[in-house]
Amino acid sequence: MRTTVGIIGAGPAGLLLARLLHNAGIDSVVLESRDRAYVERRQRAGILEQGTVDVLRAAGAGERMDREGLRHDGIELRFDRTRHRVDFPALTGGKSVMVYAQTEVCKDLIALQIEEGGPLLFEAEALAVEGADTDTPRIRFRHQGAEDVLECDYVVGCDGFWGVARRAIPAELSRTFERTYPFGWLGILADAAPSHDELVYARHDRGFALLSMRSPSVSRLYLQVPEGTDAEAWSDEEIWDELERRFETADDWRLERGPITQKSVTPMRSFVHEPMRHGRLFLAGDAAHIVPPTGAKGLNLAVGDVVTFARALVHRRETGSAELLDAYSATCLRRVWQAERFSYDMTTLLHRAPDATPFDDRLQVARLRRIASSRAAETDLAEAYTGFPVG
Amino acid sequence: MRTTVGIIGAGPAGLLLARLLHNAGIDSVVLESRDRAYVERRQRAGILEQGTVDVLRAAGAGERMDREGLRHDGIELRFDRTRHRVDFPALTGGKSVMVYAQTEVCKDLIALQIEEGGPLLFEAEALAVEGADTDTPRIRFRHQGAEDVLECDYVVGCDGFWGVARRAIPAELSRTFERTYPFGWLGILADAAPSHDELVYARHDRGFALLSMRSPSVSRLYLQVPEGTDAEAWSDEEIWDELERRFETADDWRLERGPITQKSVTPMRSFVHEPMRHGRLFLAGDAAHIVPPTGAKGLNLAVGDVVTFARALVHRRETGSAELLDAYSATCLRRVWQAERFSYDMTTLLHRAPDATPFDDRLQVARLRRIASSRAAETDLAEAYTGFPVG
Repeated sequence: MRTTVGIIGAGPAGLLLARLLHNAGIDSVVLESRDRAYVERRQRAGILEQGTVDVLRAAGAGERMDREGLRHDGIELRFDRTRHRVDFPALTGGKSVMVYAQTEVCKDLIALQIEEGGPLLFEAEALAVEGADTDTPRIRFRHQGAEDVLECDYVVGCDGFWGVARRAIPAELSRTFERTYPFGWLGILADAAPSHDELVYARHDRGFALLSMRSPSVSRLYLQVPEGTDAEAWSDEEIWDELERRFETADDWRLERGPITQKSVTPMRSFVHEPMRHGRLFLAGDAAHIVPPTGAKGLNLAVGDVVTFARALVHRRETGSAELLDAYSATCLRRVWQAERFSYDMTTLLHRAPDATPFDDRLQVARLRRIASSRAAETDLAEAYTGFPVG
Repeated sequence: MRTTVGIIGAGPAGLLLARLLHNAGIDSVVLESRDRAYVERRQRAGILEQGTVDVLRAAGAGERMDREGLRHDGIELRFDRTRHRVDFPALTGGKSVMVYAQTEVCKDLIALQIEEGGPLLFEAEALAVEGADTDTPRIRFRHQGAEDVLECDYVVGCDGFWGVARRAIPAELSRTFERTYPFGWLGILADAAPSHDELVYARHDRGFALLSMRSPSVSRLYLQVPEGTDAEAWSDEEIWDELERRFETADDWRLERGPITQKSVTPMRSFVHEPMRHGRLFLAGDAAHIVPPTGAKGLNLAVGDVVTFARALVHRRETGSAELLDAYSATCLRRVWQAERFSYDMTTLLHRAPDATPFDDRLQVARLRRIASSRAAETDLAEAYTGFPVG
């Protein structure tokens, strides 16, 4: 089997890349280890930056998103029982974000790929990337019980943190940067109308809480919990009670309760692998970097990576110059580190560390007051939240 | 002995307060434990915020400052061998800062006080504040070998971190907030022309360095050193060599060397005592709060405190209402916590912690790049550096 671009992983990065290449007339093959039902069911992020929305639309993959997604023009910061709204368009010259679940983006892209695009193989498990530093890199994979080889001009590893692509970069050329956090997020999906029409980020002495939504009738809510917490250790009632405490306000705001349909704990981690390219192997998305979810940057970073790769490859084809491909790692990493910084800052701004001192608590509240009182500080946050430029 | 306002400490806070009260026709007595020569010699901060400059001028204490001080319209951030200038007036609507040493401010205020003001007693050591929660607070002190009592309507403790005033607030009413840092500043005065016309804040893998100045022929330079470093352990040559390494640039910038005339190590600490008022005892400046020197906020916070007190007392006299005096602690603490936050942020932005990970290093550089590339982030810094509003 042979293709121009071999793509490992049918998450949003791999699927979007296949779509972008298809639109540019470049053929590709996508290998995905799981089956289609699994990919279309896994719950991940749900906030699309303005730039991600624009890319999906331009790629012809925005039709259902524009119909069903919820455009959000701000977020609420909640602390000390007060509420502060950050108005994105007013602060950024018109930018906003879209609430539309990653899993829906994947469904849309899978449908398009099957209808119009190149091969997308489910249950095709990549085993190794070989010859990354040659002109003919290969992906060894297992499909329908047999091993096979996909010969490529380029391989793009969109196979997540645990994938095989990153391992093909020699250790002596790799540097990793990492930070773990002593807490995680207990997330629930509930059949309850969202208690606020925008996301609410709450800083509380008992820990962070986040109110989000999937639709006008489905709430997505999160609680900061200690690292290693078992989601089943929390009863539904305990979860609602704790959410109510952390979202408390001085006014008459009320939290809507409803049946909890899903419950899980997400660990928190910051991770970057440098470089993001080795020869003809390119890493994109979680394969190269992980952010804690507080800034909603994970999916959006992946989109930036594959847009950068697709542009670079088109540039190569149109001009013969590999300069953008050669710059891929440096170009992506500039944006990645800004997102890492923002995600770290949002995390430490809002979460209570187990060893937090009274000084740390006061500092968090001072930081939130600064954002609520300085247009410059608030704009800094709004710019980062709605998205850093790609390229 | 009797006065309206008993002031403990003839640092900038106590001296300026005496001046402000004198100008408002309110009598005060200043008690200072050291002799005049000592007070006029001690080297401390040297950056006056726009608001501090305005207050000194309005108090009739700005004449020599305006003649000899150096107005600075920006600072330079140096990292990764690159240089980025932060332009204060352009970002803040015209604000700047003044380089004029605290010791010179003290000299000016002492001269004015002796010429025009009320009693200023040197070598008058405050022993205790008594009756803070009564209408007749007293300062017991020792002067010229004898104990004496100063009876007051109000006592203002401007006696620094180690002073007696804070101790008069009952422990059960006090909360302290503290953070220490595992490094300090090795500071030098040198007879060398400043190597740059504005302050240079350098982030380097070997640690922080700061280039400042006292005059067109005297440089003030600092190196981050491990906590507990003995200044004498560094030879002059070692200091210059290390400064040169940390200030390195990709261009042809050069560090001017000259004879080092003073060498000392400053520890770094964040500290806040709440409340800043108990009955008729008011704390101002370092007696209530300490900031690490990175943001140049210590002196400027002290000025804000005494301006707030003087305004509140004048308001009391003019209207009969104690509302501003009652609000003193809350009013000051809002500004104090913003300065604590900024000083902490500038410190962690630029210093290398002994246990810093490669992730932390990348985060610092990403943060500096953000400041250098986002007008919002840069404005946030410029606003904080040139000063938060008083009151």
